[in-house]
Amino acid sequence: MSQAIPSRRELQDVYDRLAPLVHRTPVHTSRLIDQMTGAQLHFKCENFQKSGSFKMRGALNSILSLTEDQRGAGVVTHSSGNFGQAVALAALNLGVPAYIVMPENAPTVKKKAVKSYGGMITQCESTLAAREMESERIQRETGASFLHPSNSLPVILGNSTATVEFLDEYPDLDQVITPVGGGGLVAGTALAAHYFGTDCTTLGGEPFEVDDAYRSLKSGKIETNETTNTIADGLRTHLGDVNFPIIQALVSEIIRVEEYQIVRAMKLIWERMKIIVEPSCAVPLAAVLRKKEKFEGKKVGIILSGGNVDFSALPF
Amino acid sequence: MSQAIPSRRELQDVYDRLAPLVHRTPVHTSRLIDQMTGAQLHFKCENFQKSGSFKMRGALNSILSLTEDQRGAGVVTHSSGNFGQAVALAALNLGVPAYIVMPENAPTVKKKAVKSYGGMITQCESTLAAREMESERIQRETGASFLHPSNSLPVILGNSTATVEFLDEYPDLDQVITPVGGGGLVAGTALAAHYFGTDCTTLGGEPFEVDDAYRSLKSGKIETNETTNTIADGLRTHLGDVNFPIIQALVSEIIRVEEYQIVRAMKLIWERMKIIVEPSCAVPLAAVLRKKEKFEGKKVGIILSGGNVDFSALPF
Repeated sequence: MSQAIPSRRELQDVYDRLAPLVHRTPVHTSRLIDQMTGAQLHFKCENFQKSGSFKMRGALNSILSLTEDQRGAGVVTHSSGNFGQAVALAALNLGVPAYIVMPENAPTVKKKAVKSYGGMITQCESTLAAREMESERIQRETGASFLHPSNSLPVILGNSTATVEFLDEYPDLDQVITPVGGGGLVAGTALAAHYFGTDCTTLGGEPFEVDDAYRSLKSGKIETNETTNTIADGLRTHLGDVNFPIIQALVSEIIRVEEYQIVRAMKLIWERMKIIVEPSCAVPLAAVLRKKEKFEGKKVGIILSGGNVDFSALPF
Repeated sequence: MSQAIPSRRELQDVYDRLAPLVHRTPVHTSRLIDQMTGAQLHFKCENFQKSGSFKMRGALNSILSLTEDQRGAGVVTHSSGNFGQAVALAALNLGVPAYIVMPENAPTVKKKAVKSYGGMITQCESTLAAREMESERIQRETGASFLHPSNSLPVILGNSTATVEFLDEYPDLDQVITPVGGGGLVAGTALAAHYFGTDCTTLGGEPFEVDDAYRSLKSGKIETNETTNTIADGLRTHLGDVNFPIIQALVSEIIRVEEYQIVRAMKLIWERMKIIVEPSCAVPLAAVLRKKEKFEGKKVGIILSGGNVDFSALPF
């Protein structure tokens, strides 16, 4: 395995360091959804994580990986939502200033949350170029450290702790599946499944509309999306050079799903499990429902990634 | 204490008998809501209970209280929603036929759920008279036993098990608060707090629009509502002669709340706790937010009664 791939020891150390700082999230099940899929599904509720998503784990670990001097100057990130919230709250809890660059069209509920966590918001156009330019300006002016939402080892290691925790409680999961956006969650999950599971494979779920990860695994190089026309607003980004080698080595398959399948899976979780998940978070269940034959009879772990929803814009 | 009030032994027996048949529901907390109220709130998530509400407990216990012959002929109830769903699922799980009389204007999601649990629905006008007439017809024609949603000892004892469970995990709750509709939940809760708590008082929350329980405690007799203009559709009914003496003896206070406070509390739970609760279920938190001074510094248990929501008719 390539040198870029972290060791079991590194995952264990990060798990130990984050354990007192994060919620140990519960695992829910649904008899009805098991009947629908023929699998035994276990849902790891990272929508109940601090800041409302698994991103808290990577954000905390990123800040903890900085030197004391670096922390004093603060951290900056650009995010359409969950990573911004997570960085703001992680920074608040660790006593570090946080600058969050958000696109103007980010959901109001996400902006409100960043503010309530004491994050300093700068708004910009929703293009990647505008977001990067604004972040760089803040770095220059404040000396803040830039935190990338998905393409960094501290983020990947932080994210891995959700699945280390999951496998600690359910050591015999056959498969674990996550949504795939920037690749930081699926990479961390795959590392945890590899080192802490018992023959546990990792899969990803991705909308057809932004199937860059699916195409990247086929072509062997990082592909991008020409359009980002999906309701799963957390999954519009593409993989990076840090997480891609891990994904290539350890993720067995990316399953693509249609938009209507995402909405249907989201509604099913709301109606039957009585928990709030955002569209991106429903993609793995949509994938299990679309490709039942891959999961039938298996003990499947699903990472419910987040629950930050704008109630004024529900798809049902 | 009057002879109508069940003993600790009866509660314990029902708890033991229901334990293998119900979910032991989790208890959630929210740092933000604690900050807003100045209390330490513990939310018992009966919205995650089988059938989506605490009503499963009373429904199961009612059916288990019948003779084998009675069970063979089935059970009938009339319900605007949650008790109907609970009876349908409890009957399914215990292999008993269930006839559910529902008003035509009951939320679609509740009718769908009753059907999915194999309940046989008869629709009628939404008046109490029409519902009773229809139930009586079914009793005559099938020999089915009528189950009342709130005014029966087996229902009250079944409902009490949520709080016995709650106090088993958190024995030092100072207060426990529930919504008050027909009175079956608050009565069962008060019994459990009385016998299993350590100086734990029971309160109720009720909409001003249907404040029959508040007025009943004042006047010393069962009062009714002239109108039922509340979003809390589960709380439109009034107390009964079985639960009223228990409520008089053991419930310390009913706090009334405005409609906008119910909606605000419901949205707060959705947004911050990421769980789905129905309007009736948000009434206790609305009461705590309205009368903070009664709860400040206390360890408060809130029974989240149910999560069966019609997503096509959200108040926000």
